[in-house]
Amino acid sequence: MPEKVTLFFDSISPYSWFAFEILCRYQPVWGVEVDFVPFLLSGIMQASENQPPGFNRFKGRYMASDLVRNGKLFGVPLTRIPREFPVNTLRAQRLLTYVKAHEPSKLAPASLALWRAYWGDSNSIDKEDVLVQYLTPVLGAEMTQAFIAASFTDATTKQKLIQETKRATDIGAFGAPWIVVEREVDGKPVVESFFGSDRLENIALMLGKPYYGPNPGAASKL
Amino acid sequence: MPEKVTLFFDSISPYSWFAFEILCRYQPVWGVEVDFVPFLLSGIMQASENQPPGFNRFKGRYMASDLVRNGKLFGVPLTRIPREFPVNTLRAQRLLTYVKAHEPSKLAPASLALWRAYWGDSNSIDKEDVLVQYLTPVLGAEMTQAFIAASFTDATTKQKLIQETKRATDIGAFGAPWIVVEREVDGKPVVESFFGSDRLENIALMLGKPYYGPNPGAASKL
Repeated sequence: MPEKVTLFFDSISPYSWFAFEILCRYQPVWGVEVDFVPFLLSGIMQASENQPPGFNRFKGRYMASDLVRNGKLFGVPLTRIPREFPVNTLRAQRLLTYVKAHEPSKLAPASLALWRAYWGDSNSIDKEDVLVQYLTPVLGAEMTQAFIAASFTDATTKQKLIQETKRATDIGAFGAPWIVVEREVDGKPVVESFFGSDRLENIALMLGKPYYGPNPGAASKL
Repeated sequence: MPEKVTLFFDSISPYSWFAFEILCRYQPVWGVEVDFVPFLLSGIMQASENQPPGFNRFKGRYMASDLVRNGKLFGVPLTRIPREFPVNTLRAQRLLTYVKAHEPSKLAPASLALWRAYWGDSNSIDKEDVLVQYLTPVLGAEMTQAFIAASFTDATTKQKLIQETKRATDIGAFGAPWIVVEREVDGKPVVESFFGSDRLENIALMLGKPYYGPNPGAASKL
């Protein structure tokens, strides 16, 4: 079994953005296969009987400053809790599922564009014009229109998103990002899950790979 | 205003153990004043209307493996969720509050001894004989007996623990460890809070200090 990292993410989740960015940076450094999988966080929360942190006002207030501080640490242009929060990301996640199936090389830039729209520029990604605005530079005008139209109605896409969400729940997911690491130990497969954007050093340790902080490309942060 | 880090902790909290250990390691590296403050997590949870992660079975299952993995990463000898979990730490926290007031240089070794008892050796720290067993090597037999007897009844100690718990709640604490960083920016005092044992790199960034991972003493972990 080759080593593999799977990142389940939802564009509603800012910590997913951090983890996605950092895994994009480490993929070439570690030389490990990374599979980015759109799922639906609302489905995960329901299945695990969990509640978003914002439901508690102490946690909500803390999260606002924790996010901005981590954006700074990770070099991710998150600015604030979006004006409209939360929003329904069913369409956005179906769209990303469709992109992954039909134009996989565009999954990363498309996902990052949606986080930038919502968590960077405070534009609600449940609106079609926002999706068009942010995905056109990634996919081109024609493909953007075609993918949006298809992904909102395509039965295979709908099913795939449900399946991936269920797959994460079956592994034990109760939030996002949910990161699954598969590797071989003494000839036997070992699968472990990690929750959040703050377990990358644990993952490096598990894979026997180096960890240089969130910016492995920088010669030194000091 | 000089830079100062305050760590609020409870011996029921294994993530407090990690943060405590790492801050002990970084204190000489950063040259920053660190104040370790015993508080009562149960009071914090009540005031912030929060629930321990173990209340959700998905989170509880995850926490068990997350703890063991982090123990390994941080070099802290945590072995498992204790056989009896949770236990009431009112007496343990009063005792540590008393130690801090009367023999402050022993607060760190006494706190670490209680975590080792409970999270390392699965011995319930609500039992007086366990407190005696683990604190005697730190305080000596006579002082251990005297401190236990005094701390369980002393009105000042009782009041101090309530006050410190309230102080943390007033700053916004909803869990443990709760870390408060005070510093000056452009001549003005800035106070920020951090939750958990996984924000040490953020704290280093905020203080303008280096971060070398959880073991700053090790030449290299790679």
